[in-house]
Amino acid sequence: MSISQECDKNKLPIGVFDSGVGGLTVVREIMRQIPNERIVYFGDTARVPYGSKSRETVTKYSRQILRFLKAQGVKAIVVACNTASAYALEQLEEETDLPMLGVVKPGAKTAVQATHNGKIGVIATEGTIGSEIYTRYIEQLNRGMEVLGKACPLFVPLVEEGLLEDPVTDEIAQRYLSSLKDSGIDTLILGCTHYPLIRSTVKRVMGEGVTLVNPAYETARELKELLDQKQLLCEKRPSLGTNQYQFYVSDGAEKFQHFANSIFKYGILSAKQINIEEY
Amino acid sequence: MSISQECDKNKLPIGVFDSGVGGLTVVREIMRQIPNERIVYFGDTARVPYGSKSRETVTKYSRQILRFLKAQGVKAIVVACNTASAYALEQLEEETDLPMLGVVKPGAKTAVQATHNGKIGVIATEGTIGSEIYTRYIEQLNRGMEVLGKACPLFVPLVEEGLLEDPVTDEIAQRYLSSLKDSGIDTLILGCTHYPLIRSTVKRVMGEGVTLVNPAYETARELKELLDQKQLLCEKRPSLGTNQYQFYVSDGAEKFQHFANSIFKYGILSAKQINIEEY
Repeated sequence: MSISQECDKNKLPIGVFDSGVGGLTVVREIMRQIPNERIVYFGDTARVPYGSKSRETVTKYSRQILRFLKAQGVKAIVVACNTASAYALEQLEEETDLPMLGVVKPGAKTAVQATHNGKIGVIATEGTIGSEIYTRYIEQLNRGMEVLGKACPLFVPLVEEGLLEDPVTDEIAQRYLSSLKDSGIDTLILGCTHYPLIRSTVKRVMGEGVTLVNPAYETARELKELLDQKQLLCEKRPSLGTNQYQFYVSDGAEKFQHFANSIFKYGILSAKQINIEEY
Repeated sequence: MSISQECDKNKLPIGVFDSGVGGLTVVREIMRQIPNERIVYFGDTARVPYGSKSRETVTKYSRQILRFLKAQGVKAIVVACNTASAYALEQLEEETDLPMLGVVKPGAKTAVQATHNGKIGVIATEGTIGSEIYTRYIEQLNRGMEVLGKACPLFVPLVEEGLLEDPVTDEIAQRYLSSLKDSGIDTLILGCTHYPLIRSTVKRVMGEGVTLVNPAYETARELKELLDQKQLLCEKRPSLGTNQYQFYVSDGAEKFQHFANSIFKYGILSAKQINIEEY
């Protein structure tokens, strides 16, 4: 391969996907840590949420998205959705040659490094908790850990309804988290990409003694490392006029754009709607 | 057509669909009012909810389901989902020869008959409220009515979380309903098939002076009338050994069956999972 071809491959975008808008918290972290990279994001807003659906269905959806992102010529894939990382990542890794990274492994690693008493809590969707994937990855890193999971199905609708600081969210958080609090964990993984948006509520309920882990930071860090290993890091910022960040959704492009612009500092130029069932 | 063929057509099942489990409240009413009829139900559990998705997407999904139900040889279709009735029914009626019925028109009719002061409230999903379809149908029936709509996006997740009688549901209901209460409506349409399950909470907040309208009753009544007009009513109970009620879903057949068995008196034999994207 010639030098110019090598160089071109590095300039290809990273594909990132989620069931909807939650994965944008991961995109934000990638933008911050590796600002030269181009990103193609896909949010499956026509079939959101994934958290209450089966392994089979989530894997089928993730496979379609993988095909779409490949068609956009990406050099690597980030599964920025905990449920898809839990259910589909291992299967999809077997089916593709592209480097792939989920959010669960980085989250598990950070939690193991953060805990002092070896008791780690995980809050996530029903699917992620039911899969016990955080427990499995944490035990691979350190057999001596105790892992306690709790599904919090109302957190996503509460966030999407905008009740980020609200007595109702406080009340629901107290119910969901009371058993975790009583168990004496010192570290809690925010195992769903929506949850960082109600971090302060979770912090208030759990108290200062519990470290909250947001897998997004470590995911972006490991992505940088992975690209570096594969010699795929982009050395230079894309030239002016290049559309560095591209956003695709399966439904409601305008609504998505509105939400995205509320969490990014700069404005998203546009989000395009595509028919994901064709992939 | 011979008498035996006529007779056979009457014995065909009615197709009923919803985005998920909510439409079972309509099925329950059809079973009660026309117990001779066979029913094929489809719940789109792999893509639920519809209420926050676009007209285009809800219409596409409904069209696929219509094709699936036609392939099961149904004689008529009931759209037992308010959002699909609001967004897709008129379009689909143009595309098929089968008699079709939604839940919105029957709900509007009942409300117009029930109100004394001409002030009608509607609670429903974002999609149904945004479409203003209840307002349109009510005005077609009586131009003098005042219609007030309110989207209640958290009601569906609260019902699905099982918080039917709960202080949190009370608090959310009070917020959603306070403006409707202050407006002086005397009739309130439960414009989403999940809402009859929190009827008592809504009743408590609205007070005794407000009549709650559940479109399911009138939908089943109009279905009976429609089948009668088209000479499609089934005169006799299906013979023993016939599977009178069949249930299909796009995901999580077991979970669906569990929910269905909690709202029907008799046990559902089975729910089958199919791939709706193929239709």
